[in-house]
Amino acid sequence: MSSPRGNALIGQSGGPTCVINQSLVGIVEEAQKSGQIDRVFGALHGIQGVLDDRLIDLGRESAATLEAVANTPCAGLRSVRKKPTREECGQVLERLQAHDVRYFFYIGGNDSAETAHILNELAVEIGYDVRLFHVPKTIDNDLCVTDHCPGYGSAAKFVASAIMGDNQDNRSLPGIKIDVIMGRHAGWLTAASLLAREHEDDGPHLIYVPERVFDLDGFVGDVDRMYTKHGRCLVAASEGIHDKDGNPIFSSKEVDSHGNVQLSGSGALGDFLAGAVKSKLGSSLRVRADTFGYLQRSFAGYVSEVDAREAREVGRTALRIAVAGERQHGSIVITRNGAGDSYEAGFEATELSNVARVTRDLDDAFVAGENDIAPAFLDYVRPLVGTMPSAGRLSDFPIS
Amino acid sequence: MSSPRGNALIGQSGGPTCVINQSLVGIVEEAQKSGQIDRVFGALHGIQGVLDDRLIDLGRESAATLEAVANTPCAGLRSVRKKPTREECGQVLERLQAHDVRYFFYIGGNDSAETAHILNELAVEIGYDVRLFHVPKTIDNDLCVTDHCPGYGSAAKFVASAIMGDNQDNRSLPGIKIDVIMGRHAGWLTAASLLAREHEDDGPHLIYVPERVFDLDGFVGDVDRMYTKHGRCLVAASEGIHDKDGNPIFSSKEVDSHGNVQLSGSGALGDFLAGAVKSKLGSSLRVRADTFGYLQRSFAGYVSEVDAREAREVGRTALRIAVAGERQHGSIVITRNGAGDSYEAGFEATELSNVARVTRDLDDAFVAGENDIAPAFLDYVRPLVGTMPSAGRLSDFPIS
Repeated sequence: MSSPRGNALIGQSGGPTCVINQSLVGIVEEAQKSGQIDRVFGALHGIQGVLDDRLIDLGRESAATLEAVANTPCAGLRSVRKKPTREECGQVLERLQAHDVRYFFYIGGNDSAETAHILNELAVEIGYDVRLFHVPKTIDNDLCVTDHCPGYGSAAKFVASAIMGDNQDNRSLPGIKIDVIMGRHAGWLTAASLLAREHEDDGPHLIYVPERVFDLDGFVGDVDRMYTKHGRCLVAASEGIHDKDGNPIFSSKEVDSHGNVQLSGSGALGDFLAGAVKSKLGSSLRVRADTFGYLQRSFAGYVSEVDAREAREVGRTALRIAVAGERQHGSIVITRNGAGDSYEAGFEATELSNVARVTRDLDDAFVAGENDIAPAFLDYVRPLVGTMPSAGRLSDFPIS
Repeated sequence: MSSPRGNALIGQSGGPTCVINQSLVGIVEEAQKSGQIDRVFGALHGIQGVLDDRLIDLGRESAATLEAVANTPCAGLRSVRKKPTREECGQVLERLQAHDVRYFFYIGGNDSAETAHILNELAVEIGYDVRLFHVPKTIDNDLCVTDHCPGYGSAAKFVASAIMGDNQDNRSLPGIKIDVIMGRHAGWLTAASLLAREHEDDGPHLIYVPERVFDLDGFVGDVDRMYTKHGRCLVAASEGIHDKDGNPIFSSKEVDSHGNVQLSGSGALGDFLAGAVKSKLGSSLRVRADTFGYLQRSFAGYVSEVDAREAREVGRTALRIAVAGERQHGSIVITRNGAGDSYEAGFEATELSNVARVTRDLDDAFVAGENDIAPAFLDYVRPLVGTMPSAGRLSDFPIS
């Protein structure tokens, strides 16, 4: 199969990550080396920018600018939350044809894979030769096939470092502290809080993920036991915790443009859990809640170096596979070769239909009981997070 | 005035900072070099640990442990929120005498300076020769006399980096975003968000500090104007904003053990402000709020190197001045010599009574109007924060 000569177009979609621009720049730099691609365009605000013909010329950016953008969190091309209809996808294809775009790369989550999938079906129908690739990103780490997702390692490092610090805070001034962590459906990010537990009495003392049913009375009982045992209790809870019927434990009633109930951008769940603890265990208890919020996906200046490198390589790989002509469409996946210090990532492609729409929960073997994460998860997550701070602790030697 | 031979005792008090242990270790290492001090004790949970005789032997800690602790956020000795009564201060002095403590160092905010002040008065009354020093720490930066406070630079760097990332987030997915930042009485930490504004259209677009009266209608009008101008709006608001009568704009009704209304450890203020914007400007607007919470004072692995060095030196200075015998008590202050790249910090002592109880607001010259911070503040804050990330931005070149 020979690959066409023409232009490339890149878009970014969905919630930001700290390394999503590494993938963008990886595509651009590899496109410029390829000899197969005339011009590299960017669509502002993803698929909406294609529909509105808001394209920019990425080929004119200096190497210095591209490198600065690669190291900047959130979508340099700006993002969008939009699932285009089949009709809109037809309009997108018209725009691609108008600009002789033969390579389209959509950096995003499973919704973006679905968009690429629909575009591919339509392109085949009308016989337009265009290579359609999904480039994965999500702090939620919930895409299928891939071992892990670009963006996850940095968010996991942020969450683990925040919990490590908050464990020290909670040890300094004991009380009950509840930290709410992103992850609507999957507990991958909340699970990363386990990295903060160095000593047996370190928090997080309780970890709640959406892969288990959350029972409010059970939760309060867990907190009571931990508080009795340690004189303090640090809780890591996913924003996606839900009751046995799948209803969120607490959320604002608002929905986003995908029709999902809003969970982030509000402290409501944390405050609700703190209130429940106080009302049942006693109002004189010192109970606090923090919701880590957008900092998890956008904090500037603190990334996993492994994650940044891999996100760059995922972009490069997408371009290389597209140009090589072995396949007309696909989603890039990361494979894991070796464990611990011998960890190495591999990069390849899978069918769009394997990634579109579906999501991947935290492996069952990584969840321990109703309120903890299994140590086996540490082997999975450590290589992705890379260097972590380590907490020093006084020995508390007696004075005589 | 000759300085006595005897033991030293160190305590930590109040809310944590990321570098409070640098000061602790600075005191310990200088005490071990002094030749004047026999043993170095630590009190667990500050003054409460003295009352309860929960002392540990810091002299037996290895240099490696001390260094690891110095680089760990929050009080290694654990902390306390307690203003001891005069009677309790008398009991503290008895404990000091019992352990032949001739040097007491209390690392904390203005309440800790007040405790040291009372202890000093009582020691003079009973004629016990003990050197009582307050070692400053606070992310709020609101202590008097000193140019700035150890702990502030790191918290300011965290806040500025969070806002820088959130500005990118808000630019990627436009909407109205409200970030609530610590600082009960003073706007120093909220003001640091200005460091994130690199381009004219960058957020924070509005900054609200407790040094100005906060008017809810005025706030909503400000947001409306900025949203119209930029198509988005990022707000940095202090948790301490209040109406013209000094009442908090919104808070839980809870008070801490100092009798202060609880402002942190809850997302209530941010959610309240977001709700006000939606109810007045339209419920279809995308409005989100994050409360940065304890991460500002305890995040592991991200400090201002300048702040860390200075916090260490503040501890060393306290020990040196105490042993030198020029003064029997005091609070350590940092002076500023030179600006910009030629910034250098000096270290000396002032009277405890100059620091006890009182607080220092953000300089009036640093506040611009009702909703912004003046550029002059950047000259003040930059040397304290040190190296900051910088955000790259695409040029958005047209495609033809």
